Amino acid sequence: MSHDYFNPVRSVYGAGALSSLPELLAGRRALLVTFPEARALGLVGRIEQLLGDRLAGVIDDVRPNPDVAELKATYEAFWRDDGAAEAIVAVGGGSAIDTAKALMVGTASGRFDDLVALLAAGQPFVPAATKTLIAVPTTAGTGSEVTPWATIWDRGAQKKYSLHLNETWPEIALIDPALMLSLPASVTLQSGLDALSHALESIWNVNANPVSDTFAVAAVHDILATLPALMERLDDVDLRGRMALAALKAGMAFSNTRTALAHSISYEMTLRYGLPHGIACSFPLAMVLERALGRRADRDAVLLQALGGPLDSAPRRLAAFIERLGVKTRFADYGVDEGEAERMVAHALTGARGRNFIGAATKAA
Amino acid sequence: MSHDYFNPVRSVYGAGALSSLPELLAGRRALLVTFPEARALGLVGRIEQLLGDRLAGVIDDVRPNPDVAELKATYEAFWRDDGAAEAIVAVGGGSAIDTAKALMVGTASGRFDDLVALLAAGQPFVPAATKTLIAVPTTAGTGSEVTPWATIWDRGAQKKYSLHLNETWPEIALIDPALMLSLPASVTLQSGLDALSHALESIWNVNANPVSDTFAVAAVHDILATLPALMERLDDVDLRGRMALAALKAGMAFSNTRTALAHSISYEMTLRYGLPHGIACSFPLAMVLERALGRRADRDAVLLQALGGPLDSAPRRLAAFIERLGVKTRFADYGVDEGEAERMVAHALTGARGRNFIGAATKAA
Repeated sequence: MSHDYFNPVRSVYGAGALSSLPELLAGRRALLVTFPEARALGLVGRIEQLLGDRLAGVIDDVRPNPDVAELKATYEAFWRDDGAAEAIVAVGGGSAIDTAKALMVGTASGRFDDLVALLAAGQPFVPAATKTLIAVPTTAGTGSEVTPWATIWDRGAQKKYSLHLNETWPEIALIDPALMLSLPASVTLQSGLDALSHALESIWNVNANPVSDTFAVAAVHDILATLPALMERLDDVDLRGRMALAALKAGMAFSNTRTALAHSISYEMTLRYGLPHGIACSFPLAMVLERALGRRADRDAVLLQALGGPLDSAPRRLAAFIERLGVKTRFADYGVDEGEAERMVAHALTGARGRNFIGAATKAA
Repeated sequence: MSHDYFNPVRSVYGAGALSSLPELLAGRRALLVTFPEARALGLVGRIEQLLGDRLAGVIDDVRPNPDVAELKATYEAFWRDDGAAEAIVAVGGGSAIDTAKALMVGTASGRFDDLVALLAAGQPFVPAATKTLIAVPTTAGTGSEVTPWATIWDRGAQKKYSLHLNETWPEIALIDPALMLSLPASVTLQSGLDALSHALESIWNVNANPVSDTFAVAAVHDILATLPALMERLDDVDLRGRMALAALKAGMAFSNTRTALAHSISYEMTLRYGLPHGIACSFPLAMVLERALGRRADRDAVLLQALGGPLDSAPRRLAAFIERLGVKTRFADYGVDEGEAERMVAHALTGARGRNFIGAATKAA
């Protein structure tokens, strides 16, 4: 059996690192893709000033969970005028970066529907043209800055597509903790717990490998040490930086494994119970850990490195960590009764991410 | 201040992973570059069988520390017939992989002297044509499989050149611990200690960054736990695998920092006292650690993670680890008296690698 690891993203980080954007673009013209509040926060102005006439345009109406219906016009306008920008700079959370990933791959016709039709049919898409992406996360959690994946929603068809091409790896992840100082407590917590979930889910994963494990163990250590302190001091740029690096490492880990059972459970909890993603994918972590332990000696060894011993008490300690941050860890806390929870877990184990869980083969009903 | 990390090499590993070579080449024709004993060991035959008519040729006269005089004919013959191979498969230690890196970048004229002249003048070289490289290390130590550097010697001119281009990153590091089972004890020890030196030198390094630190800490832990056990059981493929992964991680660490003072010291110890590289760059590690401690709080914190506490005793513990493996750790043990050692360290601090040491600025004479 052989494993493999690959991540071609250059990561650049440091408080104030945003100012290296012109140098990183090295003369290329760029389109800025960002979230609606970015202008009021002064972010758009700062980038306009940094890039001057190298800024080819600004798209600042990115909504959470980008939908094909909203993306269509943006995509087609961008590719009609594709000489204007060689690069895309995405500044924001997962939604801005995912939107940029959809924009960066051009269809032969320039029509977005052609891309969506291939995604819907699960058929391969070979871009006729591509742009390079510099991803500038303003949250510490998504990991999208170091993965090639974008989630695109089609609410009309009640579907969720995963775009994943060799061409959708960002060129650069530009991580500036100073951009995260204004993040509210709720988003800080949700994105931090999302990162914890990425790290742990990459360990109890059939695709785990020694390099992803190295990143995951470091990320878990960093998050356990940093997130509680950060929640007490949201304006501490050093703690913001540590949490941003922890999220980066978690991203480097799951960029090669994808997620597993906790994320599979989260989709239904978000859809039916309205839980924010970071809560939905982290509240079941202790429960999933309990199911993971004892399955494979090599996975137990890595979980021991990540969570410390004894492993018997690790689920209890992990649950206590999450509860101390104010997040309840049982299905009942969210109004899901025992029978319904069992059904939900059994269903989650059969999903694409659920099948990545090391306990899936024997636990799936 | 911003840091950055980049390593685009895909790593593939597992006992028996060599058999995935045809799949990794995906139809491309390849030249095999390897060491003279590879044929007698059955390695050349195995690759001939695996690749069949996709094998464009075999160069198996690679000597330790490749010299420009030896490389010239090989290089020019290869590029005269460059239609024959799209890829190079390098199987061996650092010398085979470094030779392949020199071969993979073609000059416009096809003449090797043009490349050497640019290296000698320290001028930039833009290859007119390139080949891709699959590096298959047969030792666990060099790290060359995940770095873009090659050292080329010019004994005639008493010089050592460092080739380093964007084009000399390997595409794939194919790590098969089964290929390491026949390594003798001496080479196993020397390459293992070289890897330890890579990991530690990336930590007490002005170019250190959080991603290189993550790899370095994991590599140090793995080497401290694995190398003594491996020296007792050279035919244990599991221990060979762990040591190969430790060396890979050390390579991933120093691929973004280069080495520091211990390596700078090693060059003179190899040249004047004939010490093998792995011994020359590891015997001074405890002494260099002593000079590193207390210089920078962030470096002390990473050294504490790597070596455990208390830091005060870390140099003594590191020296004891190396001595237990049968390697003496004082200059005097190698016939270098105190005055000469002081002069050598002072000189080493002014070298290119010595200046990477966090203590260089204040310690250099």
